[in-house]
Amino acid sequence: MTEQRKRMYLNAFDMNCASHQSPGLWAHPDDQKSTSYKTADYWIELAKTLERGFFDGIFLADVLGTYDVYKGSRDTAIEHGVQAPVNDPSYLVPLMASATKHLGFGLTVSTTHENPYIFARRMSTLDHLTNGRIGWNIVTSYLESASRNIGLKQVKHDERYEIAEEYLEVVYKLWEGSWEDDAVQNDKENRRFADPSKVHDINHYGKHYEVPGAHLCEPSPQRTPVLFQAGASKRGKQFASKHAELVFISVPEDYLAKRYVDELNEELNLAGRDRSEVKVLSLLTPIIGKTKEEADAKREAYRKFVSHEGSLALIGGWTGIDFSGYEKEDKVEYIENEAMRSSIASFTNQNADEWTVGEFSEFVSIGGRGKVIVGTAEEVADQMQDWMETTGVDGFNIAYSVSPGTFEEFVDDVVPILQERGLVRTSYEEGTYRNNLFGYDQLPEHHVGRTYRQLSAEIKQ
Amino acid sequence: MTEQRKRMYLNAFDMNCASHQSPGLWAHPDDQKSTSYKTADYWIELAKTLERGFFDGIFLADVLGTYDVYKGSRDTAIEHGVQAPVNDPSYLVPLMASATKHLGFGLTVSTTHENPYIFARRMSTLDHLTNGRIGWNIVTSYLESASRNIGLKQVKHDERYEIAEEYLEVVYKLWEGSWEDDAVQNDKENRRFADPSKVHDINHYGKHYEVPGAHLCEPSPQRTPVLFQAGASKRGKQFASKHAELVFISVPEDYLAKRYVDELNEELNLAGRDRSEVKVLSLLTPIIGKTKEEADAKREAYRKFVSHEGSLALIGGWTGIDFSGYEKEDKVEYIENEAMRSSIASFTNQNADEWTVGEFSEFVSIGGRGKVIVGTAEEVADQMQDWMETTGVDGFNIAYSVSPGTFEEFVDDVVPILQERGLVRTSYEEGTYRNNLFGYDQLPEHHVGRTYRQLSAEIKQ
Repeated sequence: MTEQRKRMYLNAFDMNCASHQSPGLWAHPDDQKSTSYKTADYWIELAKTLERGFFDGIFLADVLGTYDVYKGSRDTAIEHGVQAPVNDPSYLVPLMASATKHLGFGLTVSTTHENPYIFARRMSTLDHLTNGRIGWNIVTSYLESASRNIGLKQVKHDERYEIAEEYLEVVYKLWEGSWEDDAVQNDKENRRFADPSKVHDINHYGKHYEVPGAHLCEPSPQRTPVLFQAGASKRGKQFASKHAELVFISVPEDYLAKRYVDELNEELNLAGRDRSEVKVLSLLTPIIGKTKEEADAKREAYRKFVSHEGSLALIGGWTGIDFSGYEKEDKVEYIENEAMRSSIASFTNQNADEWTVGEFSEFVSIGGRGKVIVGTAEEVADQMQDWMETTGVDGFNIAYSVSPGTFEEFVDDVVPILQERGLVRTSYEEGTYRNNLFGYDQLPEHHVGRTYRQLSAEIKQ
Repeated sequence: MTEQRKRMYLNAFDMNCASHQSPGLWAHPDDQKSTSYKTADYWIELAKTLERGFFDGIFLADVLGTYDVYKGSRDTAIEHGVQAPVNDPSYLVPLMASATKHLGFGLTVSTTHENPYIFARRMSTLDHLTNGRIGWNIVTSYLESASRNIGLKQVKHDERYEIAEEYLEVVYKLWEGSWEDDAVQNDKENRRFADPSKVHDINHYGKHYEVPGAHLCEPSPQRTPVLFQAGASKRGKQFASKHAELVFISVPEDYLAKRYVDELNEELNLAGRDRSEVKVLSLLTPIIGKTKEEADAKREAYRKFVSHEGSLALIGGWTGIDFSGYEKEDKVEYIENEAMRSSIASFTNQNADEWTVGEFSEFVSIGGRGKVIVGTAEEVADQMQDWMETTGVDGFNIAYSVSPGTFEEFVDDVVPILQERGLVRTSYEEGTYRNNLFGYDQLPEHHVGRTYRQLSAEIKQ
């Protein structure tokens, strides 16, 4: 090859529960996750597999509630194991980190549900223990059932973003502005562990949070974790263009990915950030066979396990709309409820009138809202390459149909082809997650979070 | 030996920070923790050492604030690294668990600062990932600086216990009463992951918490973690007698330990619990030498590193009293402030009038408020055995002077002697932490927490 190919970033998408993005497929004979998700071994093996495949990171989804919109009950979600039960993802990080050297970890934590002062310490601790391999997927939470059990009123979408903005301000101050680089001296001779004059109270007195004190932790390798965001709304895109370093999109068609990338580019321009500071990763579920026929047959076999009701439970949680009362065979165009039909349209990102409700639920059942590629390893690699070139995304967020299965097949069969083509790297950078992604350890100078580094200078004046 | 000796329980005491119970000793040439506490390796090595020494568990202290009473500032704590900075202890558990098979983990988490619904999920997740090796040290928090940064008003001691009682009720309901043992079926044939009729909303509507929903996690091996408590007050003792399975006491003299054990026995009687359901562990810092002279010399060497100011910072946080304004040489009996003198008396558990302020601070500097034994391994073993026989405690909570150092010496030199005497076991039980301690995996039938198992039965009626 003479031309320098754009590097393809690879990320894995998983969740600390029996069934993540493919409702019903937990029951497939190959899938073991419905019992193994609770064990350390599942995660350690997965982490090793991903590092063997030169993945940049693994992104752990999370919800703090149960999907209870469908039929007004959480019974369907529980019966089909649809992201319920769901364990805390953060404890998987030290486990997976101890089994790997380079893999990054993106943790989903809601600004609505966790106190910023306590949360900032959690992330700094993980960044220390992993030698700088932690990332944070910033969410504002969509499940009313979560807020209810935490004693909060569910707040409206836009207000959640307003609260999130202040939340970010608090944690930036703690991570970037509270401890100077040379605050900790470890000077045994003079019996001086740290210089208190280089540790600063953040004095945050805002509308939603009051945090007067200093951060509890000394600076970690990355200070601020790598920031993820997956907001698809206008407001979400603005938020991403201001804060995010990794952006995740879930669209089934390339023109939709391209549209997103173009819009994000505009927002980034407005925010004064360079496109190179943000990587956009597109959701992808590969179904791989030795031949195209084998891959197609595999997909058909998976389809037999799709849970129609489980999918509608998932959609109910995502959209807030209860799709019960319709048969699988009912056509979407005959759904009378206007909100429901427009939700389907925005959800599928296309005119789905010709679909049946069953097709709509199946659309979600394998690979969530993202692209599904069915074929040989060569064909999967071809289509990934095409998708990147057509859309301008930087890589993929890979979801599984069955686990173990999808990730192992992808690593063993597709990654070597992508490496041959010069798309996926053949060795890791040393150092932090951010360094692996961008070539620097901490937020770049003009990132809004980095500006809080000035806090200490201001206080000194 | 003909008589069956009472088994000696061994627990290690540490904290995710540079300097735990021995202010100033971080600067001793042997101590490496001021830099290594942030790393995975320190904790993995420590866990392996403790398991090699047949320790039952490790107890991780925690504070969510900084010691800022002394001189009305947190500067002294930061300068001397006195439990500041302090990282989150919970992420050490998966690390240490992956390096061991039997060691238990006691995590300090405050009922004042963590939401019970989110906390219950954290503990269930850890119990799953460690195969049932998690414990919870229940604290109500003493540092006003913690509450301030979380946006809470510090509540009074007795009200904290009232809130803690309701908090326990909520988490018992989630851990014990929400998911029946056979709720999760994993029935692939019938595509039924769980039976929703065996998952129960807890419907908790109390004075301090409202938690209507079900637990987010399926039952873990122990369901409720092993419950630790260290409350020394009358109210704390009542709380311990009702809930605790491991009780930690910090006293320097055997008659004080005996008095505590006797009082706890009375409270246990009143609470209808058997003494065998609770293990009392006494704080101990061993300083071990090949000869008594070497041990004494070691202690003298440690004393040279004691930080007088650091100790007063620690005491300030514990007592709420600022001891600045007195010289090291000042006698306690000449302190005019009545509250301060009575605090010293209750703190040292003895009439300390003859002491100097320097002696008082030094009393805390090596081994906190607990017993310090200085001698050969044989002498340390003798005194531990005597202490157990005299006081009726079940074992020891071992703190370090320097780390690495104290734990390694104790495991290599003292444990084999205790094993020879039939006091410390020579193999672990299989199974959970609770099984290792008590011979059963879950709370016993009449424990107050276990009674919430009835929740499901009641709901069904």
